[in-house]
Amino acid sequence: MSTKPETRLSRAIREALLVDHHVHGALKADVSQAEFETLITESDRPIPTWMSQFDTQVGFAIRRWCAPVLGLAEHANAADYMRARLELGASEVNRRLLTGSGIGHFLVETGYRGDEILDPHNMSWASARPVNEVVRLETVAESLAASGVSAHAFPDAYVEELSRATAHAVGVKSIIAYRYGFNFDPNRPSHDEVVAATETWLQGVADGAAAKVEDPVLLRFVLWAGVDRGLPIQLHTGYGDPDLRLDRCDPLLLTPWIKLIEPKGVDIMLLHCYPYHRQAGYLAQVFPHVYFDIGLGVNYTGVQSETLIAESLELAPFSKILFSSDAWGPAELHFLGAALWRQGMTKVLQRWVDSGDWSESDAVRVVHMIASENANRVYKLQGAR
Amino acid sequence: MSTKPETRLSRAIREALLVDHHVHGALKADVSQAEFETLITESDRPIPTWMSQFDTQVGFAIRRWCAPVLGLAEHANAADYMRARLELGASEVNRRLLTGSGIGHFLVETGYRGDEILDPHNMSWASARPVNEVVRLETVAESLAASGVSAHAFPDAYVEELSRATAHAVGVKSIIAYRYGFNFDPNRPSHDEVVAATETWLQGVADGAAAKVEDPVLLRFVLWAGVDRGLPIQLHTGYGDPDLRLDRCDPLLLTPWIKLIEPKGVDIMLLHCYPYHRQAGYLAQVFPHVYFDIGLGVNYTGVQSETLIAESLELAPFSKILFSSDAWGPAELHFLGAALWRQGMTKVLQRWVDSGDWSESDAVRVVHMIASENANRVYKLQGAR
Amino acid sequence: MSTKPETRLSRAIREALLVDHHVHGALKADVSQAEFETLITESDRPIPTWMSQFDTQVGFAIRRWCAPVLGLAEHANAADYMRARLELGASEVNRRLLTGSGIGHFLVETGYRGDEILDPHNMSWASARPVNEVVRLETVAESLAASGVSAHAFPDAYVEELSRATAHAVGVKSIIAYRYGFNFDPNRPSHDEVVAATETWLQGVADGAAAKVEDPVLLRFVLWAGVDRGLPIQLHTGYGDPDLRLDRCDPLLLTPWIKLIEPKGVDIMLLHCYPYHRQAGYLAQVFPHVYFDIGLGVNYTGVQSETLIAESLELAPFSKILFSSDAWGPAELHFLGAALWRQGMTKVLQRWVDSGDWSESDAVRVVHMIASENANRVYKLQGAR
Repeated sequence: MSTKPETRLSRAIREALLVDHHVHGALKADVSQAEFETLITESDRPIPTWMSQFDTQVGFAIRRWCAPVLGLAEHANAADYMRARLELGASEVNRRLLTGSGIGHFLVETGYRGDEILDPHNMSWASARPVNEVVRLETVAESLAASGVSAHAFPDAYVEELSRATAHAVGVKSIIAYRYGFNFDPNRPSHDEVVAATETWLQGVADGAAAKVEDPVLLRFVLWAGVDRGLPIQLHTGYGDPDLRLDRCDPLLLTPWIKLIEPKGVDIMLLHCYPYHRQAGYLAQVFPHVYFDIGLGVNYTGVQSETLIAESLELAPFSKILFSSDAWGPAELHFLGAALWRQGMTKVLQRWVDSGDWSESDAVRVVHMIASENANRVYKLQGAR
Repeated sequence: MSTKPETRLSRAIREALLVDHHVHGALKADVSQAEFETLITESDRPIPTWMSQFDTQVGFAIRRWCAPVLGLAEHANAADYMRARLELGASEVNRRLLTGSGIGHFLVETGYRGDEILDPHNMSWASARPVNEVVRLETVAESLAASGVSAHAFPDAYVEELSRATAHAVGVKSIIAYRYGFNFDPNRPSHDEVVAATETWLQGVADGAAAKVEDPVLLRFVLWAGVDRGLPIQLHTGYGDPDLRLDRCDPLLLTPWIKLIEPKGVDIMLLHCYPYHRQAGYLAQVFPHVYFDIGLGVNYTGVQSETLIAESLELAPFSKILFSSDAWGPAELHFLGAALWRQGMTKVLQRWVDSGDWSESDAVRVVHMIASENANRVYKLQGAR
Repeated sequence: MSTKPETRLSRAIREALLVDHHVHGALKADVSQAEFETLITESDRPIPTWMSQFDTQVGFAIRRWCAPVLGLAEHANAADYMRARLELGASEVNRRLLTGSGIGHFLVETGYRGDEILDPHNMSWASARPVNEVVRLETVAESLAASGVSAHAFPDAYVEELSRATAHAVGVKSIIAYRYGFNFDPNRPSHDEVVAATETWLQGVADGAAAKVEDPVLLRFVLWAGVDRGLPIQLHTGYGDPDLRLDRCDPLLLTPWIKLIEPKGVDIMLLHCYPYHRQAGYLAQVFPHVYFDIGLGVNYTGVQSETLIAESLELAPFSKILFSSDAWGPAELHFLGAALWRQGMTKVLQRWVDSGDWSESDAVRVVHMIASENANRVYKLQGAR
């Protein structure tokens, strides 16, 4: 393995305190290897016996980057890794990986399987870093459904409940990508449409269905309520689990809606975007209120994330790109999000500096913009701390 | 030209006996330069007089990699290359290129212009390697049409004929991509629909039309019959000749059908995939029964296939990626498929090992998985040999 | 910064006189930094106060490549750069950047905001190089609308006016991508349809609307009139300003129309194509009358254009790839288009020669094909000079 001499640029990247603008909690409890493997893939299917999820880019990256944090040699095998993980215990593993990540501020989205992972308070405790909350729009609706709200009261009740739920939040999140896709009618649905869709939905819940919001009218209603709330809106785009139709998660399909809400003055944060990150870069160039990150894709492409990072630095102004890990569960994903970003940025930017294409000062400025300055500005984090 | 020292990894790649899981026969006869040029492009149009198909990535790769196999210097010009090819004669050219490829096992799809190319028996003889057959679903239907089957008898007759045709086959292949695109109704068509579509189709044949299956009902019928047969199903996806609408060959459009057949327990082999190989990698990650290769694209992108190979190693577990050449005709394409794969894998994986991101042992394991182990498992080749 | 020794290949690239087959005029007048920044982005929105368009790949590339041409150090800051630019004055800036670009022949498209930029005559004077004209099909229709033509007379009048406007032109250009997208009915509209659409359009103009052609019937009419005219047809594809729906500018959507006009014998020049350049390469391989370039994307991706250039050298025969800058306004964009192309080609092709994959002679031949030979052949430029 070659070790490169440290430069002003590589030191700046190594020391940058990152704002992870879209992340979830770390696991509360110890997990077996079988459970762990289900948490390092976006597949929700049982893992076939003839394969291991460690034989993936993310699996190799965990063994290379996280093994030393747990006291093992780089590339320790999966069994040794899992043994060390259990011996240290969940909270020590979380502490080491979260504090070792160099993430300085977590914006935690709390809407998914919250009982298995650390809540924002405990994430802050485990990482010794400030945490702010991002509220999932659909989850607020789903918890209202459980409260016995009537269909007629729902629209106003949702707005009120969203206001309450986001009182201390720095952003909201939509998963319309998962639940429907971006080929939705971009216009705000009428009050009557919303009430009618709510009636059908609540009747289903009364009949025993899960309270999952899937009706496009309701998804659009909560999205527009998010616009009215005025906080930055995060949208899952691109790659995710098999629930979504990936071709309907191309952020370009959002263009009509992006134009429609432009006068509202809210910022749109396109999350992940893989494999449509070049398309996201275009949107971030031409629309002042559009930003993006390549979070999830960086973790799951491991060493090849260097290429993704380079491709994310094409059309978008550097003031429109953010860092995220999109980690959920194993703190390895929080750690890796940062480690792979640092490694990829170092390789890509150092190459551009070495060839004389970028000055080192410019490269360092860009690092700080993406690492934290853009997020601090958009989410107004200095005030929020 | 730089020569790199051999490493354990580069030796493993050089020595790996490949399973070419989707390939066709090599040319039976000698061909002129004009004929040869029409066989190294996916275009079926006459080649304009102002250009040569040798002035392409695949043409440059043939002159660089195959010229030495024919006794010429690397980069010999096209005229010298064709002269040497004729002097050696088709069967010596085939012998040198097929045995020199290091392909250890060919899964030969026989459904296209079979009279111009070696059949499986002769491919085995020319290469001195085992060959198994993959049967094209549409070709079985088309040969039935010539047998005088009635529309009412067709559905049962097709199932019976497919069973007979695949008695010794290891897989089946669908070209619904070429004939319609992936925007088809994913459901199995009803018996009545199939009979009605067959009537129209057979009437056309009786009136003198070619027996080509193009009706989406018939294409879906043979595809579902392939599912029932239970062998792995190969699907042409992505790049191919001008008959297809490339945008309708994005494998993501198969998602509803992929979900529908998931309980059936058959494996789906997405072939080629270029330029949608990242999308294929997503499908291979989230669906246990989805696999893919980047065969055709590797040959046609020549030296730039290194980038393709790296991009194919992103989301998919390494147990879900296969090798193929998709060669048809000139044995140069069989040879190059292997040579370019070896070169690209060596460049990409050695870089990752040298940077410390992958261990050499892991890299060697991944080479063996993609080279042969995954194919051996999916197609049950040890038993089939 | 590393400096590489000159090779036969790098010298050939440095000295190649380029044909810029799609470009616009350089700015007539001096501009402020605020104005300049609006001209180095495809966004037409006001630039937010918290950002500078210099903090982009194209901005960094201007400071790296153009600053020395204006007498400054590489990477001079934006304020110093703009000061030097004003001190030299528009015509000296144009002279230095245009003559310094090594572009030997400009094919200038004149249809957009022509009063702010140099016309072909003055572009030739400023660059000391020959200029030929490319005529925008929609602009010819829009100027006719102002002339008081009747709806019934319009179809014939358009053909006549197009003939007059293109008497000395070497090509025509369609912006149906911007105005509608490529999901248009590929067939030629009927005379009656055109007259009816013209009536509505002219009535709108009479009522005070801008004469902008947006009706798909009219857009198709002028496109087919372009086909009849027989000159090569340039089509904007892919990335551009926020007027377009990028997902509808994938050149694959043109496939039915490309097939329909194939017998007409006119050449189709797909411009820019980003991020669909791989799709364009497929079309250029399989259809003899399809060509492409990656002009606009090269400028806006700066140092990362090396990757774009490599990706453009995949499926397409080398006889089907052209050079363009697509510059409009600041002569920095004319200069950079050439400088980045030279740098990217040098890095990519030298790597392939150094690894032994390409011979140096072949690499030099490919440089000349893309630099000028393909354009000279398609546009018959030797005669046109």
